[in-house]
Amino acid sequence: MIPFADLKIDALLVSGLPNIRYLTGFTGDNAQLLVTPAGQTLFTDPRFTVQASEECTCPVKIHGKGPLDAAVADHIHRKKLKRIGFEAPRIAFDVYQRLKQGLQLGAGLKPVSGVIEKLRMIKSDAEIARIRRSVLTNSQALEKTLRSIRPGVSESALAGQLEYEMRRLGAEKAAFETIVAIGDRSALPHARPTARSLAAGDLLLIDMGACQDGYMSDMTRVLFLGSPSKRIATMYKAVLEAQLAAINAIRPGVTAAQIDSKARRIMKLHGLGKVFVHSTGHGLGLEIHEPPRLGKRDRTRLEPGMVITIEPGAYIRGFGGIRIEDTVLVTQYGCEVLTPTTKELMLL
Amino acid sequence: MIPFADLKIDALLVSGLPNIRYLTGFTGDNAQLLVTPAGQTLFTDPRFTVQASEECTCPVKIHGKGPLDAAVADHIHRKKLKRIGFEAPRIAFDVYQRLKQGLQLGAGLKPVSGVIEKLRMIKSDAEIARIRRSVLTNSQALEKTLRSIRPGVSESALAGQLEYEMRRLGAEKAAFETIVAIGDRSALPHARPTARSLAAGDLLLIDMGACQDGYMSDMTRVLFLGSPSKRIATMYKAVLEAQLAAINAIRPGVTAAQIDSKARRIMKLHGLGKVFVHSTGHGLGLEIHEPPRLGKRDRTRLEPGMVITIEPGAYIRGFGGIRIEDTVLVTQYGCEVLTPTTKELMLL
Repeated sequence: MIPFADLKIDALLVSGLPNIRYLTGFTGDNAQLLVTPAGQTLFTDPRFTVQASEECTCPVKIHGKGPLDAAVADHIHRKKLKRIGFEAPRIAFDVYQRLKQGLQLGAGLKPVSGVIEKLRMIKSDAEIARIRRSVLTNSQALEKTLRSIRPGVSESALAGQLEYEMRRLGAEKAAFETIVAIGDRSALPHARPTARSLAAGDLLLIDMGACQDGYMSDMTRVLFLGSPSKRIATMYKAVLEAQLAAINAIRPGVTAAQIDSKARRIMKLHGLGKVFVHSTGHGLGLEIHEPPRLGKRDRTRLEPGMVITIEPGAYIRGFGGIRIEDTVLVTQYGCEVLTPTTKELMLL
Repeated sequence: MIPFADLKIDALLVSGLPNIRYLTGFTGDNAQLLVTPAGQTLFTDPRFTVQASEECTCPVKIHGKGPLDAAVADHIHRKKLKRIGFEAPRIAFDVYQRLKQGLQLGAGLKPVSGVIEKLRMIKSDAEIARIRRSVLTNSQALEKTLRSIRPGVSESALAGQLEYEMRRLGAEKAAFETIVAIGDRSALPHARPTARSLAAGDLLLIDMGACQDGYMSDMTRVLFLGSPSKRIATMYKAVLEAQLAAINAIRPGVTAAQIDSKARRIMKLHGLGKVFVHSTGHGLGLEIHEPPRLGKRDRTRLEPGMVITIEPGAYIRGFGGIRIEDTVLVTQYGCEVLTPTTKELMLL
């Protein structure tokens, strides 16, 4: 799976924890993984001795004396490995430097990027099943929470309720800090929940995701308490049109940038080009943000088995923001929108 | 505050998000901060335009076209800065490499480590107040949850309940994935909650923390459903003795390693030296793990205003684990245990 020959390396040091989990099943939070054509070796510390032996089938080296890179360098030396690839975006500069200093004469480090992430872009059937489950949990948690929503509830109480419902439905945690933004706070694409409470005439933007069995889901919906102004209704319709246009364009062979430009074109037609301040979406799986990035510069061609979000948004300072987001599976002939929640502007 | 002259740098590029939050108040999740003796400049992307202007008093540069390092390099060039320190443990190798390539002739990068973290070790009165609040939330969430605990409840349902109560008490999230480990699963120091359910004769280990207003708390308690065996009671007493010995040794001027060795000595006396597989504690604040590390090799001298955990533990595979952990403030004459929860072995 890893193209050692093309990369001109004898071994790949995998430092990104989600990459390590993908390759070995290990879920602890301190590890390095050395992969050679002959097999894998996991390095971790004594807190994870039992866990590693339960989760991994590969050999595990327990290193209790400081950073793991010393044990990795020692192993590289004993196995006489010479050309070691390392994950340049996943390794801190100081770990790289210590590792380099720890290697013997004749052994060298070569930066590589996105090797495991590329494998991870195409989800297996087992991974897709887990993502479906996570998406379902996410939508059910929203549905359960909305049943009891009342004026006066705070952003942070709502966020707490949503995350509690996710857990009750089997998630181990939220995929990210749940965003609940009321009124003009919805103009902050990454708002943190505050004590602001819901009143008549308020927009309510909810961006939530579950992490279940390690796999993420991601959804944004906008609600309104009362009867929305014409400006809000028009803006909502424009964003929904952009979202549907992007979804309709998804099929194998189309590039990530082409999907982005579909959404962006519709937003521009409605005069919302400049207030659509982020990309149209992103891959997700073991992480909430994975390649591809559905932005202007990503030429990755979509393939069946990719799971991505489609989430155009418009943000007007002092007024409010609208974002509509689904989790979508790329299929052989097009795509399947996994998120089952309605995309009509929900009125409370 | 930052010793530019001692470090022989004209500017420090701060890449660690908690460090950026500490210096500027910015809570977004994509930023770089350049600090010179003359002031600070924050770099972020358009998703955070409004948020950055609300949270920061320093100048903010919004960069919408790819990684922020290009904007940082450009700024360094225009300001004619030559010697740029960067946070070696906080910057990914590829960001370092792009930054280096982006700099003009005559400008150079110098790795530094722990500069802002050192400032952060000593908490201000305002920070201590926030930590107290977070500790209180944490203990109250445990208390509320324990009232309704019943045989048959699963690890993950309990973890969900604990996190929900934290949020209801004002936390924005859990400080880390709440650990609830039943029976022999308590022998995994970093167990993830599963569907395992509580039955008579089970140990129950709960390691939980709140994140409130950005500041963390951390506590571990062990409970027992029924009447504990002599082996468990003896083990519990030993760990508690070690924990109290470490706490009693805390005062300004003592090193982190000395505190660790106090706990370790007691554990050894009780034959538990080899199953105490981690350090005695760690600093906490904006992050759940901060310096100092209360382990064998950390010679940091304790100072008033430091906030640390004290958490010896013993882990016996196939049998179970005991850990007792408090959040502790170092004071002028000794320390104050902030965690108000009882340390008696709680029987359910």
